[in-house]
Amino acid sequence: MSQYLNYAIQLAEMVEGQTGINPPVGAVVVTNGKVVGIGAHLQQGDKHAEVQALDMAGNRAQGGTIYVSLEPCTHFGSTPPCVDKIIEFGISKVVYAIKDTTLSSRGDQILKDAGIDVEFRYQEAAAKLYNDFFTAKRNSVPEVMVKVSCSLDGKQATDEGQSQWITNRAVKQDVFQLRHINDAVITGTGTLNTDNPSYTARIEEGKNPIRVILSRSGEIDFTLDMFKDTEAPIWIYTENENLTSNKNNIDINILEDCSLQNILHDLYQKGVGRVLVEAGPHITSEFLQSSYTNELIIYYAPKIIGGSGRYQFYSTEHVLELADVPNFEIVNTSMLDQNIKVQLRKK
Amino acid sequence: MSQYLNYAIQLAEMVEGQTGINPPVGAVVVTNGKVVGIGAHLQQGDKHAEVQALDMAGNRAQGGTIYVSLEPCTHFGSTPPCVDKIIEFGISKVVYAIKDTTLSSRGDQILKDAGIDVEFRYQEAAAKLYNDFFTAKRNSVPEVMVKVSCSLDGKQATDEGQSQWITNRAVKQDVFQLRHINDAVITGTGTLNTDNPSYTARIEEGKNPIRVILSRSGEIDFTLDMFKDTEAPIWIYTENENLTSNKNNIDINILEDCSLQNILHDLYQKGVGRVLVEAGPHITSEFLQSSYTNELIIYYAPKIIGGSGRYQFYSTEHVLELADVPNFEIVNTSMLDQNIKVQLRKK
Repeated sequence: MSQYLNYAIQLAEMVEGQTGINPPVGAVVVTNGKVVGIGAHLQQGDKHAEVQALDMAGNRAQGGTIYVSLEPCTHFGSTPPCVDKIIEFGISKVVYAIKDTTLSSRGDQILKDAGIDVEFRYQEAAAKLYNDFFTAKRNSVPEVMVKVSCSLDGKQATDEGQSQWITNRAVKQDVFQLRHINDAVITGTGTLNTDNPSYTARIEEGKNPIRVILSRSGEIDFTLDMFKDTEAPIWIYTENENLTSNKNNIDINILEDCSLQNILHDLYQKGVGRVLVEAGPHITSEFLQSSYTNELIIYYAPKIIGGSGRYQFYSTEHVLELADVPNFEIVNTSMLDQNIKVQLRKK
Repeated sequence: MSQYLNYAIQLAEMVEGQTGINPPVGAVVVTNGKVVGIGAHLQQGDKHAEVQALDMAGNRAQGGTIYVSLEPCTHFGSTPPCVDKIIEFGISKVVYAIKDTTLSSRGDQILKDAGIDVEFRYQEAAAKLYNDFFTAKRNSVPEVMVKVSCSLDGKQATDEGQSQWITNRAVKQDVFQLRHINDAVITGTGTLNTDNPSYTARIEEGKNPIRVILSRSGEIDFTLDMFKDTEAPIWIYTENENLTSNKNNIDINILEDCSLQNILHDLYQKGVGRVLVEAGPHITSEFLQSSYTNELIIYYAPKIIGGSGRYQFYSTEHVLELADVPNFEIVNTSMLDQNIKVQLRKK
């Protein structure tokens, strides 16, 4: 039993959502039963967790063990390889919780050749932290979380489009937290016109996500509230070649085909590692039908709306066999005042 | 709601038991909703947590908030005052979880005078970390944890002294962990002669405590196992002026009066901040009668021993009124295989 590997994972969790297209990683250096260095990868381009922890430890790293939430890297990226630094500091043992399946796995061998003991000790908590990251990185797309607020009968609004009263205060706070841990929020013009949202994270030290608007037609009402604030950049994806804006924080990206694939690839190229989809039925359904959705968060209000279901959160043109509809695993359910939060993972 | 203060407390918990007579402290610097520095006070004489975190943050600390598990210090100890460093790095807000009642509390004012926003935000989890520390520091004695393994009828051994079979494997592992988080273990010659223990922490990266032996008479059998290993220093407290040892790791402290008070003061002067008492009925009872015990951990084996109770863990010469006997608060109970662990705090 060792608590140190858990500490490394805790450190990784502390920086989850702020490392862009890099993984959140934590590291702890232990010598003679004492923590002599702690580190985390704070943001893209910064020192890796191992380097932070080794720098803090200095000479005391000599002969010690480094515990890392993820297998140390062996490549020159924006920083030199961590395995070199581990060897340089005289570490005698490396313990890590998850193998980095996106890298060639020569790290163990390089370390062993340098006389360092290496142990891969699988930890479920770390797997949760990295599985979606690995998939997203392999596909060069961000991790995608879809958020839906709806009635018990699965509608985001009445047929008339009324929706503002669906969520309560506790849900709003929880959504702020979701925005905080994602690099960007994706929405469409329908939601903008109906709700006039700002998509900020109004919690203490809330980090506002980039606001990404999908509008093939480019018909956007620039008098809406979001365009008046400069809380976070606004990136518009459109097929309309004539769309322009003279505002500093508004970037217009014109794509020949505004498919999810093209948009997500472009976002990833721009350093967006995690996105939250907060949109109306059309975009939400498009994401849920795609293979890109990793997580689905549903907030159910204790109401049944009825009507024709014009704003049901999931509707599709094609009708699938029941055996072929998207399947989810329920990760957690909880009460937020009188609303129910259900966290799901795409299977 | 802010998770950052909790992160600071988690960091403090990672170094609990390795900071000697200093408190375990954690700090997190946050700027624009991102963690830009993390730190912990690793050991006595080392940089404080705030300094570690600020050094990691560098320029990015400018305008940020620092979250600290304990009020930042204002004094020159082995390092310069943390408040100066906080001001120097351009921090705009300080949030801390516990007031340091052992220091004069001018810190808030110094920070406010420098134009820094200061918030004391009480956290129960941090209070648990520091309450015993404050008491111990005020009295210049270590925090004291007494550990007892006994039968359901409160005996550490049969009248014949048989005791080895009382604890199971799970309890032994748990006790290793207790040793790991304490600077020293205190015992007497009775236990040494009966159990021939080594008092090491045989867990991964276990930190062995200093082994403190109380022996007024100085009649010690130096052929016992403990004296053969050099796993950790051995400090003997005795009133016997003729006791000597030529071994490197054995220190003999001759006191005119080997009272608990004198011994504990001396240990504290030597940098021992936390001690675990693992002794027979005599020393255990002495500690439990005294005001020095902060925590009591009892492991009950599912046995009833009977006999006259020669080795009952608590016996006293004086009989107190029931209203005056030591009272405890039960913090937790748990099962360790077929033994019961009860954690108590002296009221």
